[in-house]
Amino acid sequence: MKHARIFSSSSRGSVSAVGELALIGLIRRWLGKASPKAPRGIGDDCAVLRPARGRELLTVDPVVYGVHFDDQTAPAEAGAKLLRRNLSDIAAMGGRPRAAVLALALDSRVSLAWLRGFFSGLAAESRRHGVPIVGGDVARLPGAFVATLALTGEARARAVTRSGSRRGDWIYVTGTLGGSLRSGHHHAFEPRLAQGAWLARRREVRSMMDLSDGLAKDIAALTPRGCLAAIFGPSLPRRRGATVREALCDGEDYELVFGVSGRCRRAPFERSFRRAFPRTRLTCIGRFAPRGAVPADALRLSDYRGYEHLR
Amino acid sequence: MKHARIFSSSSRGSVSAVGELALIGLIRRWLGKASPKAPRGIGDDCAVLRPARGRELLTVDPVVYGVHFDDQTAPAEAGAKLLRRNLSDIAAMGGRPRAAVLALALDSRVSLAWLRGFFSGLAAESRRHGVPIVGGDVARLPGAFVATLALTGEARARAVTRSGSRRGDWIYVTGTLGGSLRSGHHHAFEPRLAQGAWLARRREVRSMMDLSDGLAKDIAALTPRGCLAAIFGPSLPRRRGATVREALCDGEDYELVFGVSGRCRRAPFERSFRRAFPRTRLTCIGRFAPRGAVPADALRLSDYRGYEHLR
Repeated sequence: MKHARIFSSSSRGSVSAVGELALIGLIRRWLGKASPKAPRGIGDDCAVLRPARGRELLTVDPVVYGVHFDDQTAPAEAGAKLLRRNLSDIAAMGGRPRAAVLALALDSRVSLAWLRGFFSGLAAESRRHGVPIVGGDVARLPGAFVATLALTGEARARAVTRSGSRRGDWIYVTGTLGGSLRSGHHHAFEPRLAQGAWLARRREVRSMMDLSDGLAKDIAALTPRGCLAAIFGPSLPRRRGATVREALCDGEDYELVFGVSGRCRRAPFERSFRRAFPRTRLTCIGRFAPRGAVPADALRLSDYRGYEHLR
Repeated sequence: MKHARIFSSSSRGSVSAVGELALIGLIRRWLGKASPKAPRGIGDDCAVLRPARGRELLTVDPVVYGVHFDDQTAPAEAGAKLLRRNLSDIAAMGGRPRAAVLALALDSRVSLAWLRGFFSGLAAESRRHGVPIVGGDVARLPGAFVATLALTGEARARAVTRSGSRRGDWIYVTGTLGGSLRSGHHHAFEPRLAQGAWLARRREVRSMMDLSDGLAKDIAALTPRGCLAAIFGPSLPRRRGATVREALCDGEDYELVFGVSGRCRRAPFERSFRRAFPRTRLTCIGRFAPRGAVPADALRLSDYRGYEHLR
């Protein structure tokens, strides 16, 4: 671990040394061009934005020290992960991100050097995606660090929901699954914004979501009533070194899983995707089958559990 | 204290007894009509909203156990306070609230009875203002409870920022100040949405904000460069039993403070406000004076400090 520790042993190098107003000043400096001036950015009671075009999207996700990152995670990676998690939710609707607000709740012993690293990672990711950080709040939270980001986006064509799948639809997934923590993918992943927006323009794509708690758990949300997801183990795109169980249960894949009309001609669909995204793996992993007619060689997903929070 | 405790001594009555998915089911039941179905509400990767009319407003504020409320606060009041704090930010821009998302970070020992109370208060406030809770996230946070709400709104006429005041402008405040904690006002206040929207339609109102950290600290954000806020102690509208110092420093007033053109005819302006809001006190507390020309009987605000976070 070569980076700063999150909690400082000296009060001089910690948040308590500067207080709230000076800290907000530092945050604005650290964010730099990622933070426009009020009223379009930090510094007023609310941020003021132009309205969304098409449908507006809204999501919120935190990173919690000890849960979503730990002492092994570089602060810049924790900051980037905070925005990436939310971008992945926008991607899952086929949308474009617009602007974000950030609520920090933190112990006053949090190190300023660590926090600078956190914001440098957040700012770099913010600039890369053109998503300004337009406002926020800072509160005291003894013994902990929680950064919560709310992200607004827009879906100009349509917002792809989780609920459009029908019996017989094909199940596709982008990228590879499993081993997210071990490989560092859990913070270093690339949100599938371009792929999500492309898929939203294809009528044969009927439902979509991002994988955060593992395919075995998450797929239930896409599965039509009266059906099961018939997934074939050998077809699962696994990260190097990941087992089938890990691909199903590890979570934090941040890949897109989506349903495609069972009447779709798969080969041309897949060719178009690969032309658009030659470096993104695309795999058909199964289809939604009626409960009584699941092929015998499909995985029994009930034998696997995804990531369970709060237990 | 007649209400449930936030941390349960039995694991049966706590969040850990139900796990994440069942908890989200409970939250949806507790929210009831305050929570529409996906994709307009909870249950998809993002909430899908119609775009804002006029300008979009976006804000985020948390309630943290031990900071914004404690064991003396009834859980329903803590839940209502979470929405009210954010509504007050929308009011301060003269806007209307639209929809909210909620991120919970909590210890798995948090009591389900307490949490039900929290959500009943949040839901009642949400219904009262027509602000649906459209999505969120639940994460584990050992030893603590943080609920962060992001609220989107719209300003159809204009968004009143903090930066429009000029030398000689009058300073007005709604309601009374000080003693917020003692009186319970810190959670039971009424966000000044109707007043804020009315003021946004009056051209003579040039700047506005809500009071959260105390007038002595907050007024700096409205004060034009080269000026000081000349405030007259006897004119300060104090809550019953509050001293001048408390009115300036206690914080959590959640009243509107705003600047009105120095050329405005005050009497007709005040009469119109009182006709619109006969039960809301309106007080002219001073004006923005050039640094060299502050009347001798004005309060020296540098002798007072507002609420300082993180110290």
